[in-house]
Amino acid sequence: MSQHAEPIASSSGRAGGTGVWFIGARGSVATTAIAGCAALSAGLCPPTGMVTETEPFAAAALPALSSLVFGGHDTVDWALPKRAEALAEQGVLPHGLARAVHGELAAADLEIRTGGPLADDRRTDDELITAFAADIAAFTHRTGVARTVVINVASTEPAPAHDAPRLPTSSLYAAAALRAGCAYVNFTPSTGMHHPALAQAALSSEVPYAGRDGKTGQTLLRAVLAPMFSQRALEVRAWSGTNLLGGGDGAALADSAAAAAKNAGKNRVLQDNLGSLPQGQVHIDDVPALGEWKTAWDHVAFEGFLGSRMILQTIWQGCDSSLAAPLVLDLARLVARAHEARITGSLPELGFYFKDPDGGSPALAEQYISLLGFATRLAATA
Amino acid sequence: MSQHAEPIASSSGRAGGTGVWFIGARGSVATTAIAGCAALSAGLCPPTGMVTETEPFAAAALPALSSLVFGGHDTVDWALPKRAEALAEQGVLPHGLARAVHGELAAADLEIRTGGPLADDRRTDDELITAFAADIAAFTHRTGVARTVVINVASTEPAPAHDAPRLPTSSLYAAAALRAGCAYVNFTPSTGMHHPALAQAALSSEVPYAGRDGKTGQTLLRAVLAPMFSQRALEVRAWSGTNLLGGGDGAALADSAAAAAKNAGKNRVLQDNLGSLPQGQVHIDDVPALGEWKTAWDHVAFEGFLGSRMILQTIWQGCDSSLAAPLVLDLARLVARAHEARITGSLPELGFYFKDPDGGSPALAEQYISLLGFATRLAATA
Amino acid sequence: MSQHAEPIASSSGRAGGTGVWFIGARGSVATTAIAGCAALSAGLCPPTGMVTETEPFAAAALPALSSLVFGGHDTVDWALPKRAEALAEQGVLPHGLARAVHGELAAADLEIRTGGPLADDRRTDDELITAFAADIAAFTHRTGVARTVVINVASTEPAPAHDAPRLPTSSLYAAAALRAGCAYVNFTPSTGMHHPALAQAALSSEVPYAGRDGKTGQTLLRAVLAPMFSQRALEVRAWSGTNLLGGGDGAALADSAAAAAKNAGKNRVLQDNLGSLPQGQVHIDDVPALGEWKTAWDHVAFEGFLGSRMILQTIWQGCDSSLAAPLVLDLARLVARAHEARITGSLPELGFYFKDPDGGSPALAEQYISLLGFATRLAATA
Amino acid sequence: MSQHAEPIASSSGRAGGTGVWFIGARGSVATTAIAGCAALSAGLCPPTGMVTETEPFAAAALPALSSLVFGGHDTVDWALPKRAEALAEQGVLPHGLARAVHGELAAADLEIRTGGPLADDRRTDDELITAFAADIAAFTHRTGVARTVVINVASTEPAPAHDAPRLPTSSLYAAAALRAGCAYVNFTPSTGMHHPALAQAALSSEVPYAGRDGKTGQTLLRAVLAPMFSQRALEVRAWSGTNLLGGGDGAALADSAAAAAKNAGKNRVLQDNLGSLPQGQVHIDDVPALGEWKTAWDHVAFEGFLGSRMILQTIWQGCDSSLAAPLVLDLARLVARAHEARITGSLPELGFYFKDPDGGSPALAEQYISLLGFATRLAATA
Repeated sequence: MSQHAEPIASSSGRAGGTGVWFIGARGSVATTAIAGCAALSAGLCPPTGMVTETEPFAAAALPALSSLVFGGHDTVDWALPKRAEALAEQGVLPHGLARAVHGELAAADLEIRTGGPLADDRRTDDELITAFAADIAAFTHRTGVARTVVINVASTEPAPAHDAPRLPTSSLYAAAALRAGCAYVNFTPSTGMHHPALAQAALSSEVPYAGRDGKTGQTLLRAVLAPMFSQRALEVRAWSGTNLLGGGDGAALADSAAAAAKNAGKNRVLQDNLGSLPQGQVHIDDVPALGEWKTAWDHVAFEGFLGSRMILQTIWQGCDSSLAAPLVLDLARLVARAHEARITGSLPELGFYFKDPDGGSPALAEQYISLLGFATRLAATA
Repeated sequence: MSQHAEPIASSSGRAGGTGVWFIGARGSVATTAIAGCAALSAGLCPPTGMVTETEPFAAAALPALSSLVFGGHDTVDWALPKRAEALAEQGVLPHGLARAVHGELAAADLEIRTGGPLADDRRTDDELITAFAADIAAFTHRTGVARTVVINVASTEPAPAHDAPRLPTSSLYAAAALRAGCAYVNFTPSTGMHHPALAQAALSSEVPYAGRDGKTGQTLLRAVLAPMFSQRALEVRAWSGTNLLGGGDGAALADSAAAAAKNAGKNRVLQDNLGSLPQGQVHIDDVPALGEWKTAWDHVAFEGFLGSRMILQTIWQGCDSSLAAPLVLDLARLVARAHEARITGSLPELGFYFKDPDGGSPALAEQYISLLGFATRLAATA
Repeated sequence: MSQHAEPIASSSGRAGGTGVWFIGARGSVATTAIAGCAALSAGLCPPTGMVTETEPFAAAALPALSSLVFGGHDTVDWALPKRAEALAEQGVLPHGLARAVHGELAAADLEIRTGGPLADDRRTDDELITAFAADIAAFTHRTGVARTVVINVASTEPAPAHDAPRLPTSSLYAAAALRAGCAYVNFTPSTGMHHPALAQAALSSEVPYAGRDGKTGQTLLRAVLAPMFSQRALEVRAWSGTNLLGGGDGAALADSAAAAAKNAGKNRVLQDNLGSLPQGQVHIDDVPALGEWKTAWDHVAFEGFLGSRMILQTIWQGCDSSLAAPLVLDLARLVARAHEARITGSLPELGFYFKDPDGGSPALAEQYISLLGFATRLAATA
Repeated sequence: MSQHAEPIASSSGRAGGTGVWFIGARGSVATTAIAGCAALSAGLCPPTGMVTETEPFAAAALPALSSLVFGGHDTVDWALPKRAEALAEQGVLPHGLARAVHGELAAADLEIRTGGPLADDRRTDDELITAFAADIAAFTHRTGVARTVVINVASTEPAPAHDAPRLPTSSLYAAAALRAGCAYVNFTPSTGMHHPALAQAALSSEVPYAGRDGKTGQTLLRAVLAPMFSQRALEVRAWSGTNLLGGGDGAALADSAAAAAKNAGKNRVLQDNLGSLPQGQVHIDDVPALGEWKTAWDHVAFEGFLGSRMILQTIWQGCDSSLAAPLVLDLARLVARAHEARITGSLPELGFYFKDPDGGSPALAEQYISLLGFATRLAATA
């Protein structure tokens, strides 16, 4: 093992090494991000899909991809290299890539700890938070990185009941990040940092955090199309959509409570861009036959001049992990750099990445401008 | 007739009355614009699709819709009220609207003059320009409007041969506008003001002009979607499209030379937004069975992280006249107001409306910001 | 009124006049069928969409369209001519048609009786059946028709609970048809004749009956596409679909119990054609903005040679009443003629028309062959 | 090499071994067919997509897949195993399959001869036919198969000029098949056996032949959907389509003359099923970014009852080689068996497989019934 780990160990040993701690570290998104980061560092692939590798971010002093060191929590125990092979068979990773970056995957695999709460777990919420925070702190210490960003890429959890006696799992991890003094990103619709019980700790912490729910498909499209209708003064009467998801996400969201959490974010994009919520529903179907791929169909019924009725339909066929992984790497770099620059609290400038952002414009074009402004701000402190 | 014309005559008699002179005044777009302007002035319909009726334009001192007076050139001689009835049967205009605004349509009908060149027309280019300019000037004088905007909404003409001995028809009209001292808008892909022979006259004129080729469907979508791919660093490999057009536009564009003119604009949007032109073609088919409706299918093959292949498809089903008419009214008001404010030359701030604008950003969101800036500039001179 | 009713009265006075009694007589389907029958009888429109007007049915001795006399039950009280005007504004009926056939609509309007059970209706099931049967018998007697077909085109009712103490409404009407000695067609997914309590009466009756649930859109497509996959030995992995419905049907089916009844028929088509039910769900959404129109999107994930993954998508945009009305007229003629020819019991040869037919092949092409055979059989008894 | 060839040699040594001689033997379709036949013979994959492996063909005494021996002509010289690796990277063949059947691919590779005419080829048509026939005869002799079927799966050639002095290449190969006494299948739209100069030889030959142009995507759909419109008496007003093709086929068909050949077949399906050709065009675009995949969009504008306007759209995303290869194997078996059963001349019963068949119904469902009848006929002679 050790010879595989060396390249990363050496990079992480440098001042400026950055830890990335995934909640859901053995999932498709994390595996794709870790394999992709290694492939890009080795020059095997161009950085397609990574916004932070484009020119406007050159001066922002972001941590190099080759300086990222990966670890995380998960509750399953398949090995990352094996997971990567499975993703290659699904067409998510290119042929041969899993083998080419086997060392980096195996190194990350060694840094994954069992999360929780497990079945019949008798630990209290506070004990769990302490245990998780200890795992993260040990990783930071062991790898010698300057700081670690905690990123939630686990399966969507059901929306919590109002009177639930315990914190949702995602909030346990968010609290652990705070306790470990780590920046935090919630790439899922789960509660995470948005729990009232964490509000005080979040406010008094000195870390930046961002979320929630990565905008990778249908909602990305909605965030560019809804502003078009508004700007053209066209009246959207109904916006209907169906998502077909394979993979684990489909199964998780087939649980209607989890889907409700997801759909709240989707609707918010329409509400905020159009000024009111049009007719129409959103469905999320679990279709295992699609494997790692997803399809989103949207049907927009709108009225134009003198009430004429018109229709726009869109069909988005993408690979969820391929869409998410580069954004996750972007966020790791941006939030780590913000932490370094002593920027704290929520980061509305990162709304470009999220379905349900912490403020800012709901329109993608304006979110992009805001993101460029954030890059400029980071560059100014470099 | 006279009693029908009175409301417009009285409004046009006021200082500030604005003339709108359509090239192609008996076509679907002009008929819809005239009928719609009357309907909105009478409060019969909400101003859906009119950008200049939204809040950001309230202070720009644009001419009131009720102050617009219509006339124009055409080479056919069906009556506008009859044309409006036909559009109502196609579902372009609401039931009963043609009858409700019969007076305004009949009044405009009286202000339409025969254009040219006609078959076997022996007049020289200069004679034609002079005749057209005289028609426009007489209209301005007769109706007492403060100024007139000339707007080309005629069928697309074939791209001119390089060594054509005569000016294309659209350029004859553009030259007539200059000679009559009128502002000019080219809502079609025809040459219009973009002819080398008009360059000197355009430069030395003291009128504003804008163009070209209204952005009403497929290209509108491309102007919002292409920036999304760029901003997300996704690699567009191929962008293919097919347009099915009924009505006169389909027949005009079935002429492959005219289609070539149209497609140049469509490709420019991709080239300018993506940095290079992806694979793929655009087809324009004449499908008379679609009547006044058009359908555009786009297929975008793009690559994401690690080269994963993904696809976006869009289907836009719209009524061309309903999409174009409110933009034409917007442009009439904006350009007339610019003329009043002594703004001259090309207006890149109106790129929001055009496939092939005179400069400015190719992305709709930035074009919208630029348009808002133009409104602010107009407000400052009010 | 009387002069309008004359043409129908005279035709119904002839031997061979045929009564058509609609359950849901003031709904979109019934109104379109009545208006369309009058328009075709008067030669105002070609018989597009009517299978029984094609050549293979010429010798089947079906009742002439001009000999049909309409009446029915409904629980609302708007007038048919007014309903037809509303359908014309939605584009379902051509401009001017409602006026042209006003007489026939008004005549049918006079033959509509209030159905039930009404709110707080204290009548027993048997009393209701007796009252409905009396209404139908009186119509037959009054109009002098040779026989009457009862056709259910009412909104879909929720699937009945297993232990419901009373018959579902659709079954009350079906029982009334039996009691009145009338042939019966169920064009909806409601229970109708398929209730255990009616089994004995149906068996011992001497009338023909057919159903259920007209196949007008998504399921029609499935009945032609599913056999293609089977015949080509392609493996359908998942068949997903979303229906967007405006009009009353959307609202009725937004009730998930009613949707369950509808979806059972849709799934049966897949199950029967493919041999097993693939992955995937069907959604029915109420989208009032679509008016009388409906859109169905289907996504079929299938495997070909060596497991290669492929996809077919279909989008069907239709007007439900326009699709249903000619089939309803077809069925009225076919079933009335079967009654005349002393054919009794269920008619599996009419599976061409139904989502959930009483036996026969599930593939449209074979159903069509079976229907042609039925026409031949009718011709042989003529 | 020899050890790899053994399994096939032994099977082909048996009486009943069947030769399959591909024109275009190194192309995607031939490579997929050869690799797939080996995979199925070895039980590595289920026979998805192979109609002749379904139950109705069990008694037809078709040659076993394991008894097929492959060879052919081609003008390129890359090796089949390498080509198979490339197809696996495109997702056409499953991971690892190319390696698993390397022996069979290498054996077939040895049986491929250089075709023609080559650039600056000075041989006359007759000399070429003789040379090709000799290659085929030598293959039959060398492998000891009972008979050989020649199958054209080469790229589409341009439609020949009427006054071309020489035979088109596809007809040279068809003539060679006749001269070698071999059955012949034309899976492409090229002329092949349909050349007047071959008519006499075809008539007097004692071999069966079938064609032309495999029905694998858009036309397959049209052959099931067009009958639906006819059977339902719906009026198709316009049927428009766009095909996006990667791979070699796209490049070949970007040549508009070749596309014309292809489109003639597509239109024939509509003409024959609908009774007349509706409005609308078909486009074939070369989109190299799609690799081995193709997408076909169809837009059908149709009228229903009382002239209501409705639309069906279909999107077919498939892998051309995966769709074609099993049909090619089906045809090899069926035509070889017909040859054995002394059935000669054209085989209209195989219209199920072709865009432009030699007679028979244009509707897929009836073509399937005809194919089942053919299987029964073959069984009767077994």
